[in-house]
Amino acid sequence: MCIFCKMINKDFPTHEVYEDEKTFAFLDIKPVNPGHILVIPKKHYANIEEITPDDLAAVILTVKKIGALLKNKLGVAGYNVMENNDPVAGQNVAHLHFHIIPRHAGDGHVVWPQSEYEPGQAEEIIKKLKA
Amino acid sequence: MCIFCKMINKDFPTHEVYEDEKTFAFLDIKPVNPGHILVIPKKHYANIEEITPDDLAAVILTVKKIGALLKNKLGVAGYNVMENNDPVAGQNVAHLHFHIIPRHAGDGHVVWPQSEYEPGQAEEIIKKLKA
Repeated sequence: MCIFCKMINKDFPTHEVYEDEKTFAFLDIKPVNPGHILVIPKKHYANIEEITPDDLAAVILTVKKIGALLKNKLGVAGYNVMENNDPVAGQNVAHLHFHIIPRHAGDGHVVWPQSEYEPGQAEEIIKKLKA
Repeated sequence: MCIFCKMINKDFPTHEVYEDEKTFAFLDIKPVNPGHILVIPKKHYANIEEITPDDLAAVILTVKKIGALLKNKLGVAGYNVMENNDPVAGQNVAHLHFHIIPRHAGDGHVVWPQSEYEPGQAEEIIKKLKA
């Protein structure tokens, strides 16, 4: 059984934030900033590709609730919602989870650098996506 | 009218990827990696707090579709889903948008550094969240 399934079953200690029929939310034990929360479906799915539409809708609605909670109760100025698919994208636990990361001015975290497309490169990608 | 609303209305050129009744997807013109896609609701909402539950469910289901498309059509190994709320969190356009960022081994992008809670700090946060 995966570590997140154990938390849902109360077989592993965690700092619970929220729970409903389909979803569970708890403090990430290694926060990017204090108050960093993970929202997961109670049913085990490896990633966003595996989860059913109904369960995914339930998870994102819990994310929305938790975001409002962070603003209302912790007074955070903003937050990032992040969900990583597969180890190459930084997914460390193979149970779908959305990170909600509180942000503060000057906290030092920066989004990844952006690039520009070469001429024709974007059109080539669109062609592949629509093939 | 915001830049994303103009794109939806075809008043501003963009590389369209997908469109349905409630959602719209297009190439981010400054990609973190090639194939970086933005998914937005057609109705203007500033962020995840403003959007209705129904429209949010529609947006995340389009995110799920686009993720599968990236794997199937572009052969990406994994991807990050990211949604930023408020300028402090890196939100640059005040029209809710989910980033879908293709990832490749060795692409050099790293997730933000994690920290550890001081003794009692996590419990204090839980107390505030549940107050």
